Amino acid sequence: MNEPLVYLSGKLIPESQAGLKVYDAGIVLGATTTEMTRTFGKELFRIEDHVDRLFRSLKYMDLDIGLSRQDVIELSVEITTKNAALIAEDAELGLIHFVTPGEFSAYAGSAAGQQSMKPTVCMHTFPMPFQLWAEYFRTGIHVITPSTRHVPPQCVDPKMKNRSRMHWYLADRETHLSDPKAITLLLDLEGNITETSGANFLIVRDGKVLSPTLRNILPGVSRQQVIEICIEEGIEFLEQDLQIHDVANADEAFLSTTPYCMAPCTRINGIQIGNGTPGPIYHRLIGAWSKKVGLDVVKQVLGEL
Amino acid sequence: MNEPLVYLSGKLIPESQAGLKVYDAGIVLGATTTEMTRTFGKELFRIEDHVDRLFRSLKYMDLDIGLSRQDVIELSVEITTKNAALIAEDAELGLIHFVTPGEFSAYAGSAAGQQSMKPTVCMHTFPMPFQLWAEYFRTGIHVITPSTRHVPPQCVDPKMKNRSRMHWYLADRETHLSDPKAITLLLDLEGNITETSGANFLIVRDGKVLSPTLRNILPGVSRQQVIEICIEEGIEFLEQDLQIHDVANADEAFLSTTPYCMAPCTRINGIQIGNGTPGPIYHRLIGAWSKKVGLDVVKQVLGEL
Amino acid sequence: MNEPLVYLSGKLIPESQAGLKVYDAGIVLGATTTEMTRTFGKELFRIEDHVDRLFRSLKYMDLDIGLSRQDVIELSVEITTKNAALIAEDAELGLIHFVTPGEFSAYAGSAAGQQSMKPTVCMHTFPMPFQLWAEYFRTGIHVITPSTRHVPPQCVDPKMKNRSRMHWYLADRETHLSDPKAITLLLDLEGNITETSGANFLIVRDGKVLSPTLRNILPGVSRQQVIEICIEEGIEFLEQDLQIHDVANADEAFLSTTPYCMAPCTRINGIQIGNGTPGPIYHRLIGAWSKKVGLDVVKQVLGEL
Amino acid sequence: MNEPLVYLSGKLIPESQAGLKVYDAGIVLGATTTEMTRTFGKELFRIEDHVDRLFRSLKYMDLDIGLSRQDVIELSVEITTKNAALIAEDAELGLIHFVTPGEFSAYAGSAAGQQSMKPTVCMHTFPMPFQLWAEYFRTGIHVITPSTRHVPPQCVDPKMKNRSRMHWYLADRETHLSDPKAITLLLDLEGNITETSGANFLIVRDGKVLSPTLRNILPGVSRQQVIEICIEEGIEFLEQDLQIHDVANADEAFLSTTPYCMAPCTRINGIQIGNGTPGPIYHRLIGAWSKKVGLDVVKQVLGEL
Amino acid sequence: MNEPLVYLSGKLIPESQAGLKVYDAGIVLGATTTEMTRTFGKELFRIEDHVDRLFRSLKYMDLDIGLSRQDVIELSVEITTKNAALIAEDAELGLIHFVTPGEFSAYAGSAAGQQSMKPTVCMHTFPMPFQLWAEYFRTGIHVITPSTRHVPPQCVDPKMKNRSRMHWYLADRETHLSDPKAITLLLDLEGNITETSGANFLIVRDGKVLSPTLRNILPGVSRQQVIEICIEEGIEFLEQDLQIHDVANADEAFLSTTPYCMAPCTRINGIQIGNGTPGPIYHRLIGAWSKKVGLDVVKQVLGEL
Amino acid sequence: MNEPLVYLSGKLIPESQAGLKVYDAGIVLGATTTEMTRTFGKELFRIEDHVDRLFRSLKYMDLDIGLSRQDVIELSVEITTKNAALIAEDAELGLIHFVTPGEFSAYAGSAAGQQSMKPTVCMHTFPMPFQLWAEYFRTGIHVITPSTRHVPPQCVDPKMKNRSRMHWYLADRETHLSDPKAITLLLDLEGNITETSGANFLIVRDGKVLSPTLRNILPGVSRQQVIEICIEEGIEFLEQDLQIHDVANADEAFLSTTPYCMAPCTRINGIQIGNGTPGPIYHRLIGAWSKKVGLDVVKQVLGEL
Repeated sequence: MNEPLVYLSGKLIPESQAGLKVYDAGIVLGATTTEMTRTFGKELFRIEDHVDRLFRSLKYMDLDIGLSRQDVIELSVEITTKNAALIAEDAELGLIHFVTPGEFSAYAGSAAGQQSMKPTVCMHTFPMPFQLWAEYFRTGIHVITPSTRHVPPQCVDPKMKNRSRMHWYLADRETHLSDPKAITLLLDLEGNITETSGANFLIVRDGKVLSPTLRNILPGVSRQQVIEICIEEGIEFLEQDLQIHDVANADEAFLSTTPYCMAPCTRINGIQIGNGTPGPIYHRLIGAWSKKVGLDVVKQVLGEL
Repeated sequence: MNEPLVYLSGKLIPESQAGLKVYDAGIVLGATTTEMTRTFGKELFRIEDHVDRLFRSLKYMDLDIGLSRQDVIELSVEITTKNAALIAEDAELGLIHFVTPGEFSAYAGSAAGQQSMKPTVCMHTFPMPFQLWAEYFRTGIHVITPSTRHVPPQCVDPKMKNRSRMHWYLADRETHLSDPKAITLLLDLEGNITETSGANFLIVRDGKVLSPTLRNILPGVSRQQVIEICIEEGIEFLEQDLQIHDVANADEAFLSTTPYCMAPCTRINGIQIGNGTPGPIYHRLIGAWSKKVGLDVVKQVLGEL
Repeated sequence: MNEPLVYLSGKLIPESQAGLKVYDAGIVLGATTTEMTRTFGKELFRIEDHVDRLFRSLKYMDLDIGLSRQDVIELSVEITTKNAALIAEDAELGLIHFVTPGEFSAYAGSAAGQQSMKPTVCMHTFPMPFQLWAEYFRTGIHVITPSTRHVPPQCVDPKMKNRSRMHWYLADRETHLSDPKAITLLLDLEGNITETSGANFLIVRDGKVLSPTLRNILPGVSRQQVIEICIEEGIEFLEQDLQIHDVANADEAFLSTTPYCMAPCTRINGIQIGNGTPGPIYHRLIGAWSKKVGLDVVKQVLGEL
Repeated sequence: MNEPLVYLSGKLIPESQAGLKVYDAGIVLGATTTEMTRTFGKELFRIEDHVDRLFRSLKYMDLDIGLSRQDVIELSVEITTKNAALIAEDAELGLIHFVTPGEFSAYAGSAAGQQSMKPTVCMHTFPMPFQLWAEYFRTGIHVITPSTRHVPPQCVDPKMKNRSRMHWYLADRETHLSDPKAITLLLDLEGNITETSGANFLIVRDGKVLSPTLRNILPGVSRQQVIEICIEEGIEFLEQDLQIHDVANADEAFLSTTPYCMAPCTRINGIQIGNGTPGPIYHRLIGAWSKKVGLDVVKQVLGEL
Repeated sequence: MNEPLVYLSGKLIPESQAGLKVYDAGIVLGATTTEMTRTFGKELFRIEDHVDRLFRSLKYMDLDIGLSRQDVIELSVEITTKNAALIAEDAELGLIHFVTPGEFSAYAGSAAGQQSMKPTVCMHTFPMPFQLWAEYFRTGIHVITPSTRHVPPQCVDPKMKNRSRMHWYLADRETHLSDPKAITLLLDLEGNITETSGANFLIVRDGKVLSPTLRNILPGVSRQQVIEICIEEGIEFLEQDLQIHDVANADEAFLSTTPYCMAPCTRINGIQIGNGTPGPIYHRLIGAWSKKVGLDVVKQVLGEL
Repeated sequence: MNEPLVYLSGKLIPESQAGLKVYDAGIVLGATTTEMTRTFGKELFRIEDHVDRLFRSLKYMDLDIGLSRQDVIELSVEITTKNAALIAEDAELGLIHFVTPGEFSAYAGSAAGQQSMKPTVCMHTFPMPFQLWAEYFRTGIHVITPSTRHVPPQCVDPKMKNRSRMHWYLADRETHLSDPKAITLLLDLEGNITETSGANFLIVRDGKVLSPTLRNILPGVSRQQVIEICIEEGIEFLEQDLQIHDVANADEAFLSTTPYCMAPCTRINGIQIGNGTPGPIYHRLIGAWSKKVGLDVVKQVLGEL
């Protein structure tokens, strides 16, 4: 049988059977923490870093899943290896982890029930759909800041990758009014740049890479990869509050994210960034990235490998 | 067969088969809008009001579910009638509606995929677990304000009942450090009283019922029921910003909510409210409520009917 | 000669000669307060109310223009009467007042120079360009909330009509990315609905007219006209904080403003409001308005008088 | 003829004829971006930096003026050279650039009209009035923080030098109630120090120069000059949030600004800063500045050259 | 002996011996709640209302002083009667209550020590120094809004009269820079008008009395007196957010406060309010007040009784 | 006589006679600035730093106490030396300084009276109660973030150690609902970590010590000691905004404070920090501290010296 396997709360099951019951807190509350990584050449990318962040999120939620970091890594490798055998040789897999507090007894949302619940732990994979992102590399991404704002850390800290994402859904609607292909870049309550729904946002100014501070964003593993490459390349990487004015006047801008590593942003709210094409710092960084993972990540996305 | 039925995206299926696939936006984004109502004497309570609010939420999300208000009401009645036949004569049903934007293709969260998705629409029931709430009526509820704050309307408007509720999960943890039986009462970013996770919060002062403004809270159907009873009883009902000081010094306080209608709150952050027992306004209102629905709602919760 | 006259700091001059010197504070600081009214049947509409508001603004700025309210009214009538003689019989005039702190000596912006400056006072007229607004009446207005927010009252109080309007310029750019014909509706820093650049924004819910509170908006003279009509018609008019959710779910929405009195809003951020056409309350109000001013204001805008 | 020339939208005209029509967006909206530089020994100071910032502002406004950076620099030099010939040998010129979106057709402020407007571009000069500032150097400046706050970047980003400055006008009134010679130092909405109406504000603590962060202030060219001198002099220059407490307890404080380079601040809200006289770091920096521009800038302001 | 008596934690002692030890929480923390009332014709004014508010404050602090409301009233009357015998026949007494959590053991501020502490309860009187306020009645009060803001209710609720008043001290300094006789009127963090250090602030517009909302202010007993008089006189009394613009353009403004009942405010930040003299509504209200207490309160302050 | 001496406004008096009169601004307003230091081996610790900070606070309050820094240091040494002779050989003294604006004339709080007041200056000592803190060293401290927030710097700057601490009192109540032995860690209005009532809060991540920024906290002398030790030990010390998520996921956390130097924090809101025991960085720092002061500070607190 060539159906991929899903790890769900202790069992490996075929994907077609994988789902949550309607009383699972992941459905009732969206109180789900999650991770996503991928393979390069079918090897999982920085799986330790993703699992570490998952356990930081679990600590923040005070949730014990009954598995150690090492357990989760081994299960991740197992499921990825098995499912990778089902896809084309040059394809890659994405791997998702998610954890919810578990299933409520029938009456949804009762606080009383939480103490005795058993967390739902799930890991599943999917073939990387590179064709979705090819255009990002060809023309650059258009980011738009809608009126909807990012949830502040005193409500839910964005340092935990989580799935209470209604504000992203609402924000995307607004963004797509202007440009159906644009990507939402949320401002925080003070009007600072934060992140996109699936990526960190970075700009280049005077040869330095600038990032919003960690106050309002996910500490992305791909962002960490960029930081490490910057160190190796002797490029300064700084964190500071950034506003739309900074982005519009940046020399370059790009996203860092697990699925497609780094993609150039060439417009914000309809204003061209830099000269409107991927810039030299971007090229250096993505080049170094490709070397690190042993394949040309741009060509892979463009289907030119 | 005596298994209850669940309506799921066009089909009636046995509850044991009801669930969402792991790529459903309800799991991936928590971008779910929901309603909950119940029966009194097995008749659905204000079902039109709940369906109206559901459609207001769908409008805010710009989501078309391909069903009219009337369709949803009829389906609600059908499923409730069928499932009510399976429970004891003096039991009641809760009815939950929820809608998600639908299933993503495998790669989760892609904005690009949203346009062609078909919303997931679900309705399911459960027997009312009155025993969970009996203590609320006997000793009154203790509400606690943790440090976690309510998500502001510029991120997600609480006027839409929704399931991006991670902040409630985090807040409940804090609350239960102080008192495992207490209920979380969230403050907004300015320190105003908002609501509990499943109920509106109301106080009584000088013979008037005071509510937080609609800016930060769900316009509850049970709250509307309280307003209507207040009008009939000649009790003034006012909306204004309230803070902890107001609650600590209220004459009475109570929650209004679908499952148990109204329950007295007798403490906030360990401070006794009024004389620590349900007060005269509360008794008048719950008495009038009981008359309206044709059964003594307090006795029903206490198992004394 | 048939050139209209402009009142500029004590003199009546032909419009082609009217302008400000580059050191005028109106150019250097945008520290200008302004009013705009119009004629109905060539009679100035509520000129006393506009001049009263101008003097409230001058008081807030602590500026003495050396003219009494009565002086300004008389000059307004004089210039309007003279210029009205130059336009077609069925045309109408708009009348603008504006006041700046006056001309700086050459070095711009010096605080030291302010004490001895003489305010620049200007009044000028223009023929009402009804054709610009006809489409608003035919299809209804689309309002959009961009990410740019309204300047808060602790910086500049919007109760003073003023010309430090860079934020409106920036906001309009964002709005026009989505829809070049849409009108910007600014949110305040907390995400509440405020006003458009040239009009007050009102919604109808359950037969009542609801307005944002005066905290964040201009107390419009046309809005006052709507209030007075509401009283006469027995329609309740309420002020409260409103958010996008309220507008999307309103029964009706409309703008009130000097140039075209009242125009229906039928969409917000791409979401249809009510049934997408002007509603019954709107029709009652604009009908009453037409009676008050002795002409059908809708037909006038549509060129059908 | 000895009247200075003004560049106005493509033409060089005598200053007495330079002005804007009443429908220019610079008058109607205050939607004007501006720059100011000056000469030292009749040579323009860092003209490239000022023109670069002008073009960053134009990009933020998405305004195309039909001139390249080089064009603007050449026009700047031309007008400065011509006008410098009209003033005394030891005098200096200030040069102002400003750009507005252009003239509206008669009905002011219509969004519809913006697309076809042609920006108004103006450059004009004035003799530097050094006598206005001499007292600043003799006794030091008294800065005062009024209750009016700086417009936040989510409304208008202060990184764009712009002329929607009503809040400065209102703030100056408050400041001058306490001391008619004092200069306004605005706080932001969180109570952080920002800038004065025409200068950046800097303090010295423990031998380091501290600046508010760029979030809330203009990135001044003179501030940049200070940074470069600090690097040359081995003085650390840091950006951080500063409050009144920091200023009152600073060792030194000063303004950096085009007209008079750097001037000492010796009091804030009536509290003496340091020992109330210009300090050693200030002297080093202004000394280095004088060397860089080839003349003693303090003596020049004091008329002692 | 003619020394007044002070009630201090259970004892009546001569005033010269009354004080707190240096480890009292009133000195160490400023965690003191307080009340102040006065006599009219040597009878205590609304003593029940003041004691009620004291007990609301104690409830908010969760402090049990071991005395009932009735106990405190009787002690208040006793001390007032005794001390009133020591002053001139036409003099009046002020009466202060204050309560602190009590004395720490030597190490100040230890949270651990709080549980076993015994509250310090103090009541003391002083002759009313009417001459301090005579000028307020003669020329009207000048109120000034400094940059320091009121502490928000999420830190300390101003509905509790309390003595953590450092912000008032700092604010007064700023105010007195402009006018040593002016009274501080604090803005809240959003720029709304709140209250003065010792009085509620009210304005009159269009024949109605307007007050800031109770969110940010003490619910003053004298303010309550004004409300009751307004009801009797048929004058509408409304609560709403007010800003400086509202005050500058009010018809009248005044303070309500225990010591001098009501005093006119005739300037805000140097701007004249109304025509700069006490207005007709003020006169009606203070006239009614005088009737209620059986003496002309204006003449009493002016020393003309 | 073996009673310790207190310095009070110019006199040395026995502690039993030391107190403030009820009209002292320290009681009436809580407008008190304070310092606390202690002895190590009966030598005052960093007395110059404490006196410097006291004078910075006095400058912020614009208060002249008629004593020089040197005067205060000498008086500090004198009183400490004298009182140290009264305690056991191995005991230590705490030394408190506090200054209030002085005594009001009878009518409390009148702004008018402030100009002529003479500040109250007090210095007093107490034996260090090490036993109170022993448990902190044995099991680590549990910090809790209640809903009450820290007063923001635009009201009172926490860089001044002051005694308007009602919010701490209210916050401690909430904290002790969860755990009577826990210590309050206040969040600021944006949800950032600030400080505890008597200590700075620091965390360790990846071998670096991280502190909240100075915006919201006291620049503690013990914190400065930690910084200096970090420099000597080659441990990086950084300031940045920190949230609960950072603390829950820190490797270590600790308090720095005068009384007990440094104590480990092992839980936040019930979540274990690191492995729940004092970590290696903590041990290095406290070890270095002990060397600097010539005694084992941990053993001293544990009574094991």
